[in-house]
Order: sequence, then structure tokens, then C-alpha cells
Amino acid sequence: MTRWLITNGTFLTMDDSNRQFKGWMAIEGTQIAALGEGDAPHDELAIAKEVIDGTGLLYLPGLVNTHGHSAMTLLRGIGGDRALQDWLSNYMWPLEAKYTGDDVYWGSSLAAVEMIKSGTTTFVDMYDHMNRVAEVVDTSGLRASLMRGVIGLCSEEQQKEKLAEAVRFATEWRGAANGRIQTMISPHAPYTCPPEFILKFVEVAHEFDLPIHTHMSETIAEVEQNVRDYGSRPVEHLDRLGVFSRPTLLAHAVHLTDEEIALLAERKVAISHNPVSNLKLASGVARVPDLLTAGVTVSLGTDGAASNNNLNLFQEITAAALIHKGVSGDPTVIPAIEALRMGTVYGAQSIGLGSVTGQLKAGMKADFIAVTLNQPHFVPLTDLASHLVYASNGTDVVHVWVDGRQLLRNRELLTLDEERIKAEAQRGYERING
Amino acid sequence: MTRWLITNGTFLTMDDSNRQFKGWMAIEGTQIAALGEGDAPHDELAIAKEVIDGTGLLYLPGLVNTHGHSAMTLLRGIGGDRALQDWLSNYMWPLEAKYTGDDVYWGSSLAAVEMIKSGTTTFVDMYDHMNRVAEVVDTSGLRASLMRGVIGLCSEEQQKEKLAEAVRFATEWRGAANGRIQTMISPHAPYTCPPEFILKFVEVAHEFDLPIHTHMSETIAEVEQNVRDYGSRPVEHLDRLGVFSRPTLLAHAVHLTDEEIALLAERKVAISHNPVSNLKLASGVARVPDLLTAGVTVSLGTDGAASNNNLNLFQEITAAALIHKGVSGDPTVIPAIEALRMGTVYGAQSIGLGSVTGQLKAGMKADFIAVTLNQPHFVPLTDLASHLVYASNGTDVVHVWVDGRQLLRNRELLTLDEERIKAEAQRGYERING
Repeated sequence: MTRWLITNGTFLTMDDSNRQFKGWMAIEGTQIAALGEGDAPHDELAIAKEVIDGTGLLYLPGLVNTHGHSAMTLLRGIGGDRALQDWLSNYMWPLEAKYTGDDVYWGSSLAAVEMIKSGTTTFVDMYDHMNRVAEVVDTSGLRASLMRGVIGLCSEEQQKEKLAEAVRFATEWRGAANGRIQTMISPHAPYTCPPEFILKFVEVAHEFDLPIHTHMSETIAEVEQNVRDYGSRPVEHLDRLGVFSRPTLLAHAVHLTDEEIALLAERKVAISHNPVSNLKLASGVARVPDLLTAGVTVSLGTDGAASNNNLNLFQEITAAALIHKGVSGDPTVIPAIEALRMGTVYGAQSIGLGSVTGQLKAGMKADFIAVTLNQPHFVPLTDLASHLVYASNGTDVVHVWVDGRQLLRNRELLTLDEERIKAEAQRGYERING
Repeated sequence: MTRWLITNGTFLTMDDSNRQFKGWMAIEGTQIAALGEGDAPHDELAIAKEVIDGTGLLYLPGLVNTHGHSAMTLLRGIGGDRALQDWLSNYMWPLEAKYTGDDVYWGSSLAAVEMIKSGTTTFVDMYDHMNRVAEVVDTSGLRASLMRGVIGLCSEEQQKEKLAEAVRFATEWRGAANGRIQTMISPHAPYTCPPEFILKFVEVAHEFDLPIHTHMSETIAEVEQNVRDYGSRPVEHLDRLGVFSRPTLLAHAVHLTDEEIALLAERKVAISHNPVSNLKLASGVARVPDLLTAGVTVSLGTDGAASNNNLNLFQEITAAALIHKGVSGDPTVIPAIEALRMGTVYGAQSIGLGSVTGQLKAGMKADFIAVTLNQPHFVPLTDLASHLVYASNGTDVVHVWVDGRQLLRNRELLTLDEERIKAEAQRGYERING
């Protein structure tokens, strides 16, 4: 395996010691082999096939986007600034009904372009035609946790078919693309899947050793409906159904009581916080400082591009650091480094990849990004974590590596044809909207 | 005067008719001479000295940043994530006390670099050593409204000197740089200027026909102190002192009652909303939808880079469009086009430049920017105002013109030496912090 070396770089490791230093990093094959402060050791220089000068660059782990529907890029900008039900019923659902596998392929390809160019190296995706998303992961070189999102408001027979398809996808694609594809199983939400159907997901999750991902408590209306229909709020409801007996990632979780937060902490359930989508759709502001205090792992997701409207996880990191200060009245909550943890190490941990990605550490996969410090908003060079969160944005990312392979070089994509993808995505939108 | 032409561009005029069209625009000297849909007329092509192809570019008015302290770029990233009084007393004030005129010059130059590169063409600046900021405006080619910010917590003699200096600056520099510099007068805030001192600002504002700019009601503590010290909340207090008898721009105005909003509307007082600074310092969320409904002109400001931490007004536009939806629970408040108005036309109107800048309109100054549409986050090309607000960011700005003169071409600055400015700003910070 080829061993190569970065020298003279600035590194933000995001590991427990929270180190920021000038130094070097050696990559061997798909992994980070070693890293350290100061000049590279002579033996590293001796065995390196290639040495890259990292002067002026800040290296950090690639970002982990823990909730999204990548093919929804084709619906970007449609029906914005409207009430949620109007937006869903009159814009999203009628258009999504027209999606073909090709639309999912090009929409997800466009998402991959955006994500790589803004520093995301791992993403979670829940949609339909997931084999086409898996193809995009394979081609692009990204890492992903993929799943068929299943809405259960249909006949028992249809439910059975959909579940079988979800299990088939999860078991067939798990470990594909050199291990870069992991899979989960996903009942869409408590309000779109009857309890007896959710029980079946729990069963197969145990049978096939799959984690569970679902939407929960995004809106107040949804929580109230849960109480009306099932006599309990969503956390208790899902707990009773046994969902939390599996590793679980919940998207949104905006509306929570103290008791629900305590139970989520006890059950070690992870939360994907989607601040921009929650603001744009006026869902509310999640109780993230309380969740973190309770010990819940909170990561960040963009949600689909139709409710964001981009897939730049740096914007979520910034939003998470800012909004909870303003709403709580406490400027010390979610400091910059904690927001970065949410976008990296906590993201990896929340999808079972805590020992694989999300930190710069010997033995972990070489999933990392380089940010140029030669920008006016990085002057003066004071607190780099603060600058990344409050002053920078995704366009300062210049290089991206996943699994030791470079996907972006000087903002040029190496694995995807950006111009063709933009043209095909535009065509896909025009067909759907035609 | 040279007349030149842009053809095949997409234009977002931000005028009352709210037009978005493919077409052409003619510039003559410092002004927009004409614009229209479709192909450029033959007579325009005949008289144009130069024709620029605007294919793939979106042209819109340059942004107007209505509140800031540009020299504070030197303190970017210092003392972040701390309580307000800790941050001010232990970080900002001790360092600001060491500022020289040169620090203000290089700090403001760095601010100019950032602002031009993110599409701002006019900015409001309140600080000390303002003649050095005026030099930067002159050199950079930007448009600005400048003022000495005066803190009155000192002897009567010092107050007198400071006020005289503020008046001298305002009268000497008004109309300088080919009319690109306008001036105002600024008592820093009701809590830093005793009432009898504020009265003197009102007097000179009338005598020299100057508008007034001040901070107001940024924090709850400040409002409570005003009630304790003067028996009324800040709006009533300033109204009684006659401040609103002059054209007035108030920064922040986070904490307002219904009665205060009604009075601000009646007195035609303009508000500079600084959403990112208000979130970062945990000041709270201003009642912007209520202010707009009441007919108050609300524009956007970045505040200083130390509490933001950049000067990218696109981030304020996005924050304004997102946060008020999330906090109010209504996804229809501040739609994309309204957020863009806050960043352009309302900004110009709030500083007396409503007939000068902030719109693409024949007879107005040629202050405009071009955004490249060839970005993944602009695909599909649906609602361009939505894309600008929710999907784009300042780095999509490729060209900038002010007063008919190009300041940025393909993201290269034409009037400022970016590399030297970054180096001098870094040195300034190191000296101050040394």
C-alpha cells in the first residue's frame, strides 16, 4: 500500500485531546497511519512515496451529514416560504410521485457534488430507488449510510413488499463500495407508520443486525397527533414499540419534554439536529443544549435540499452554534469546538462509525478535508475553530479525501463530472415539473 | 462619459415592480442609464464603447450593510463564546484602547476586502479615527455613511471635545470621494450617553443637517437600566430627547414593546437588524416581522467582525429569512425577496440613499454585483431570489461595481492589494495583542 505524507499543515484533530497543531500526517492505503506535531520524522520522509506541502492549509476530519434525502436537490427552490402542509401536499408530493430511478441518480449525483465541495465525506440518506443512490456513493467515492425510507400508509400487502425491499436493499448493499456503504432500516415516522408496522421493523432490525433511523417530533402538530392516536408522546411510543432496543438515530426531535430527553439519554438514542430545515419550515428550535447536557449524542443534518436549500454542512455547524445562544440567552452554549464536534465526531458516532471516521487519528479511515487559511475572514489567525464556525463557510474547502482517495483537488472534482451532472439534474427537474 | 453595455444577463432589479428578467443594462459614467428585457436595442449597441456578455450571471443591486465597526476585523475570533460583559470588559475594550490610526486603517481595509468580495457596495461605519476609514472608502471605491461613535461617560470637557470632533468629521468629509462618502452623527447609545449630552447631538444634527445613528435596546439589561435611570424605555427616552426629529437609524432594537414599535413607525425611524451578532452575543431575536408589518424600514447590518465573525451580508440575509420563521412558527414571514429587500433597497432608504443606490433603475448610481449561476446549488434554475437567500452565499459574487467603477473582477480586487492588507492586519493584531 502506498504511504504518503502531508507536511507543514495545521491540524484540528477533533479527537478527545482536542488538539490543534502545526505538523504532519501520514496516510497509508485507506487509513491515517500516523500524525504528529512539528517537522515530519526522518523515517516517515524516507518511506513516503509522495510528500505534499500543507502550508496555509487547515486539515480536519471530513464532515458527517446525518440526515438527508439527496435526490431532493431536483426540487430545490420549489414552493418555498409556504406553510408546511401546502408545501408538502401541493409541491413536494406531486412532484416526488413522478421521480424515476434516473431522477434519483442525477439528483443524488448533484447532492454528491455539493457535499464534496463543502467538505462532507459521509452522509446518511433515506429515500426511494436507493440502489441508484448506492451507485452514486460507489462512483463518487463518498462514505454513506443508506436506507429505503418506508411510509406505511398503505395496504398490509404493500407494507410487506416495501419492508421486504428495504431489508433486501439493506442486506445486499451493506459493506459495498469497499466498505464505504453501510445500511440502516427506516420506518419514515411514527405518524406515517402504524405501530404494528413499526414492530416489524424492530423485528427485522434484530434479525439482520441493522440500526434504525426515523423522523420524530419535527412539528408540534405531529406530537399532538401521536398523543391523540396512541395515547403517548413519540419518545414513549417508540420506546414501547422496542425501537430503542436497536441503535437508533432520530431526525429532528424538535419538541421534547424533560422526561423524553432523560429517556433518550438512558436508551443511548442519537439525534440528528437539522437547524436550517427546522427554521425554514418553521418547525421550531430543538432543545440541543439540554440534549447535550443530558449526554445525548447530537449530530447535524441538512435534510433535503428542498427545505434548506443547500447541502453545505458548514451552514448547519454555524447555525447550531448561533441559534441556541440567541434563543437561550446564554452566549456560552455550544461553543465553536462543540459545533464542530457535532458536525464530525458526533456524526460518526451516531451512525456506528465512531471508530472509522470523524477524527484525525492513527488507525482511522483517511476521511479528511483541507481548508485554505488564505482568506480575508481568517485574518487575524486567532482561534481557528472559531473562524471555521463563525467566519468561514464550505467554499473554503479546497481538497477532500475519503478512504485515502482524493475526491476534490483545488475545488475540482476528481470522481464526478460536475458539468454533466448539473445539466442532467436540470433536465430531470424540467421533466418532473413539465 | 463612457457608455457601456451588459447583454444576455439575468437581472433582479429590486425595484417596486420586483422584476426578474433576461436582458440588458447600459451604464454611463457613474449611473445606470437604461435597462430592459430581451436583446439590447440597436441604438444602445451602436453607442456602447464596450459590450460585456452577461450569460450565466445574475445582476442585482450591491448590498447595503447598515451597521458595523469595520476596524474591529482585527479582533476577529477574540474572546468568543463568552458572556457579553466578560467579552467586552476583558477582551474588546482593553484591546481597542491600544488601537492607533494605522490599526483602524488596516482593519477597515481588511473589512473593505471582505465586503467587496461578498457583494456589499455601501456600508455604515461607526468608530474612532474615522478619517482613516474615510481614506479606505476613497481608495477602495466603496460607498459609505461614516461617523465618529461617541461614548459620553467622561467629563463635560471631554464630551465637548468628542462632539466637536464628530461634527468636524461629519461636515468635512460629507460629499467626499466624488459623493460616495456621506456622514451622520452618533451618540453611541442611551446607556453610554447621558440625556443632556444626547440633547447636544440633536442640536448639532439640526444645525448641520445630519442624520443620527445610535445603538438601542440590544440587550434586556440595557432596557432595564434605562427604565431605572431615566424612568422610561429607550424608545420613549430618545423620542423625548428629540432624537427622532432627525432622520434616525437605530442599530439592534431587539427588545421592543408593541407601543415602541408603533412609535418607531410613526416617527419613521429606521432599524438596522443584526441577526448574527444578536444570536452570537445571545442578545435575543428582534421582532422583525412585527416591525415590517407596522411599516418600519428594517435593513441589515453585520455589526463588527468580533461579534459575527465575518462581514458577509449574504449571511445576514439568510439568517433574517430563516430565524424569524423558526421563532415565530410561521414559514411565510420574511420570504426570500423581502430578505433581499432588507439587504438592498431598505438599506439604502434607511440612510437617505433611497434614490441613489439599492435598486437597478435608470438614473440611479451604478452600484451592482454579478453572481455566477454556474454553481451546483443554483441547480435547478427555479426561483433565483430563493436560491440567493437559501442556497447561495457571498462567495458566488464574481464582479462588483460601485459608482460605475469595477471593484471586483472574477473575484480579484481591482482597487485594493488583498495580500498586503491581510499581512498588515495580521501585524496590527499582533501588536495590539502583544
